[in-house]
Amino acid sequence: MNLHAVYHRQKSNYAYAYGKDCLHIRLRTAKDDCTRVNIVIGQKHRWEEKESRPMKKIASDHLFDYYQYEVYEKILRLGYYFELSDGEEDYIYSESGFTKTYDDENAYFHYFQFPYLNEADILKVPSWVRETVFYEIFVERFCNGDKENNTKELTPWTEAPGPHSFYGGDLKGILEKIDYLSELGINGIYLTPIFTSPSNHKYDTVDYREIDPMFGDKETLCELVKKAHEKGIRIILDGVFNHSSWYFPPFLDVVKKGEASKYKDWFYINSYPVKKYREEEVNDYSRPLNLSGLNYHVFATSPNMPKLNTENKELRKYLLDSVAYWMKETRIDGWRLDVSDEVSHDFWKEFRKVVKEINPEALIIGENWHNAYPWLRGDEFDGVMNYPFTKTAIQFFTTGEKSAKDLAADLSEYFMWNYEQADAAMLNLLESHDTMGFLRWCGEDERKFRMALLLLFSYPGMPCLYYGSEIGLTGDGDPDCRRTFDWNEKNWNQELLLFCKNLISLRKSKKTLACGDLRITAGEDLFYLERRHLNERIITILNNTKKEVHYAIPEGGTVLLTTGELKNEHIIPAFCGVMMEVK
Amino acid sequence: MNLHAVYHRQKSNYAYAYGKDCLHIRLRTAKDDCTRVNIVIGQKHRWEEKESRPMKKIASDHLFDYYQYEVYEKILRLGYYFELSDGEEDYIYSESGFTKTYDDENAYFHYFQFPYLNEADILKVPSWVRETVFYEIFVERFCNGDKENNTKELTPWTEAPGPHSFYGGDLKGILEKIDYLSELGINGIYLTPIFTSPSNHKYDTVDYREIDPMFGDKETLCELVKKAHEKGIRIILDGVFNHSSWYFPPFLDVVKKGEASKYKDWFYINSYPVKKYREEEVNDYSRPLNLSGLNYHVFATSPNMPKLNTENKELRKYLLDSVAYWMKETRIDGWRLDVSDEVSHDFWKEFRKVVKEINPEALIIGENWHNAYPWLRGDEFDGVMNYPFTKTAIQFFTTGEKSAKDLAADLSEYFMWNYEQADAAMLNLLESHDTMGFLRWCGEDERKFRMALLLLFSYPGMPCLYYGSEIGLTGDGDPDCRRTFDWNEKNWNQELLLFCKNLISLRKSKKTLACGDLRITAGEDLFYLERRHLNERIITILNNTKKEVHYAIPEGGTVLLTTGELKNEHIIPAFCGVMMEVK
Repeated sequence: MNLHAVYHRQKSNYAYAYGKDCLHIRLRTAKDDCTRVNIVIGQKHRWEEKESRPMKKIASDHLFDYYQYEVYEKILRLGYYFELSDGEEDYIYSESGFTKTYDDENAYFHYFQFPYLNEADILKVPSWVRETVFYEIFVERFCNGDKENNTKELTPWTEAPGPHSFYGGDLKGILEKIDYLSELGINGIYLTPIFTSPSNHKYDTVDYREIDPMFGDKETLCELVKKAHEKGIRIILDGVFNHSSWYFPPFLDVVKKGEASKYKDWFYINSYPVKKYREEEVNDYSRPLNLSGLNYHVFATSPNMPKLNTENKELRKYLLDSVAYWMKETRIDGWRLDVSDEVSHDFWKEFRKVVKEINPEALIIGENWHNAYPWLRGDEFDGVMNYPFTKTAIQFFTTGEKSAKDLAADLSEYFMWNYEQADAAMLNLLESHDTMGFLRWCGEDERKFRMALLLLFSYPGMPCLYYGSEIGLTGDGDPDCRRTFDWNEKNWNQELLLFCKNLISLRKSKKTLACGDLRITAGEDLFYLERRHLNERIITILNNTKKEVHYAIPEGGTVLLTTGELKNEHIIPAFCGVMMEVK
Repeated sequence: MNLHAVYHRQKSNYAYAYGKDCLHIRLRTAKDDCTRVNIVIGQKHRWEEKESRPMKKIASDHLFDYYQYEVYEKILRLGYYFELSDGEEDYIYSESGFTKTYDDENAYFHYFQFPYLNEADILKVPSWVRETVFYEIFVERFCNGDKENNTKELTPWTEAPGPHSFYGGDLKGILEKIDYLSELGINGIYLTPIFTSPSNHKYDTVDYREIDPMFGDKETLCELVKKAHEKGIRIILDGVFNHSSWYFPPFLDVVKKGEASKYKDWFYINSYPVKKYREEEVNDYSRPLNLSGLNYHVFATSPNMPKLNTENKELRKYLLDSVAYWMKETRIDGWRLDVSDEVSHDFWKEFRKVVKEINPEALIIGENWHNAYPWLRGDEFDGVMNYPFTKTAIQFFTTGEKSAKDLAADLSEYFMWNYEQADAAMLNLLESHDTMGFLRWCGEDERKFRMALLLLFSYPGMPCLYYGSEIGLTGDGDPDCRRTFDWNEKNWNQELLLFCKNLISLRKSKKTLACGDLRITAGEDLFYLERRHLNERIITILNNTKKEVHYAIPEGGTVLLTTGELKNEHIIPAFCGVMMEVK
């Protein structure tokens, strides 16, 4: 047996409360190594009544198999260990390592344990995540609804954007298009930042209590939220608490007064006076900025975005009061948190308390590009933007770096990183305002894009479409990925739009896609993703090769959707995906 | 290369802030597998300046080697991956798994990262832990100082205890013996609970704001703390927040008023009326109690200890206000937390905020018998009672289940479970009020006990002696391990006492024992534990076999202490340990 591969840790993603009446206990082994994996589990104070139960293999990646046992009964002060066999060797695996027998006399010294299921520690995600399809809107580029509120010179709507272009998109524009969104079928909107800011993207906030006048005002937002809610659409805002704009009045005060400023601890200032840059040189992306004299912490390499010291109590109160203000005043449904991995866990823990106290059903999504488990243990976020999903999708569908087996392995591995309820609250995406458009990644090959969408809507978590992708809008990296939405329907890719509508409709109507278990496998050519709920199975099959591939529809299977045309039911064409239902 | 063995996770015990200017990054590989382990590390926004640096092997257990790299410079938004070689194969190991090359063009997708070092998230343990030797006192059995405060019938001091015996030990008794403790050399005292309670152990609190009258009162405690502080001795109290006594007035109120009680949510009551047991039947340990009708949650199987619902806001305020009260009124130096693993993380996070706000140098020690990493990430405890250390010590020194190599592997593994600062704040122990005496485990073979003590004082973390063990006091499991301290010096094991004094003195005087790095190895017979600080090394060698073993004192080595008599400098006798210094 490959003992090096065996892994379990108590009170981690390998042993967590899924709900107040359910624990998930997982064990990792080497792939295809064990023939029998049992858990021996009992109450610590009634250890003599312990029982051995088989565990279920729920995932496999390149190197490992993952087994799970779900505990539903008697969840009280549990001790447990594992019994492993590869057909030749048998081992007990406990916190004391690998042994041939278990020392019941000193049982308490050796078992893993789940000491107590405390409800306060359960990761509770909003009940609505499983039925939600998100749509990200880069507000400045979606629709210019209010022609009167544009105080900056606007670039013509149809021109490609530069880094500092303004087009006039606003909240009223979204309100005007709410019927379009409702007909598209999405029921969640993630808005890029809307608070007062000098930039088009508004990731540099000047006033956390005011909506940018070019976007509207509090009343416009209230109206938008109200109208969206009437249509069954939820709205989350983008919260930028890692840094502010250098025009944020407290920062201006520090620049002006230096160490005498009462706001000096709201930022990370290394020395005084604060180094000043001209706006023109900061905005001139054509030449590198000399940062050698920069004496305060900033976001990335941007002097116009000073990093906020969220440990400062006054600043923290200002930010969290702002969070509460918007939630109470406008009834928004949650937050997407910018650069969330660079802000302290300590801040997010308090943030979550504030948000969930106001609305336990509010959603909290972090912008973490990597394994975000440390933020998803119950006391910080519900989910994150699932960029690892994006990464493997790019590598499989577009660059050809990954095979079907690689994709299956990657997605299975990522799914095991977190508690299952966090996986359900992931914001899964193919593209965003920070990436090249996925269709562009695909070299404009729509067949691949459709397959990727099919995968996006088959995988657990919340699919998130980037505005316009449903009509064929795409682009290179920032700023080209922030093009305006073309409202001239004649220019739309109507077939793609219909495909997206069908996908969204399926996702919302099929309980199995919302709640089903996940099992991913792959052959040399085909990738299989299966969701299973009660007696229903939905299977997505992708053929991301240049050739037709023979396959068999399982008995009782009916095709729900295909990304291309099927010639017959035994052949899946090149670059084609099929979603089918089996009852 | 054994890829299954390779392990790293960002922002975990494999990548954590050791201080505000230091990160520890660790990687696990299969034992004796890799010939080269490098980390490639760079700032995310200056990735082109990344550098490859060798990692240092810091520990080995049965299956794995552990490598560490300490980052001291430019700790700002780090990306990193690993370069591994076993002499035949080379691999890159990143968050994207094992590859042959690293994709620098899409670097941000693949590296592990330490996004930002937020000071608020650092696990900060009291600065004094490294120089502290603890002494656990079971208050009721140490010394009866005040003969007037004994309201229960006392068992004669020299008789062996039953589960319900009272002897009259109290705070004044400890005060009387403070010179003894000071001469012994210990500089930390952990007192078992002292708040009002009907039992001799007082793990069932009736009033969290009063000291048990048989133990003294607030003034006695203040005097004890003051006197101890004058002697350079710190005192921590035992906080029992998992459960109370059934005589806790709020519980009595629930028993009396049922659902109408305003305290009903302070406990976990399944149905009303609350099932009553007679005190006599609960206290009669000779026959099993019928718990089938028990309708409220309790500690273990004890109806006289109802579990507290620490999520209830009023109860939480009462408990945390009590914590603050004792810290402010008496200047105690911290808390040992009873049954800490069954109380919610959510409660402990708030507990830590309260405690550290009052005194950042206060110590928080959990009673966790197992891997306590989930409680030791910076926002709950500083350390825990190190029962895994106890377990392997028992198995090596007393039951013979473990060899020198096993002991080396176990201790190395446990040391890798946590951040190094948590390892320094562990309360390491051979025995407590909850275990059989270690000397008894040794079959009264003092040679083995001395070796175990030598190990206890060599290992990082705070050694904790159980009262009386220094004079030869021991016993079977509870209640026999709670015998009275015999103050008749004629009955003391004076040689053992002298040995303990020497050990304590060495531990406090040798910076290397306080702060040195740890490296543990073993041969077939001998166990080696080395601490290294600057140019000094202290090496502890244990021969836990029946035979003499030849060994070589390293050049420049001088013996600091032995557990037995050395015939010559090349032979270590059977069941003997040596601590030596090498400069």
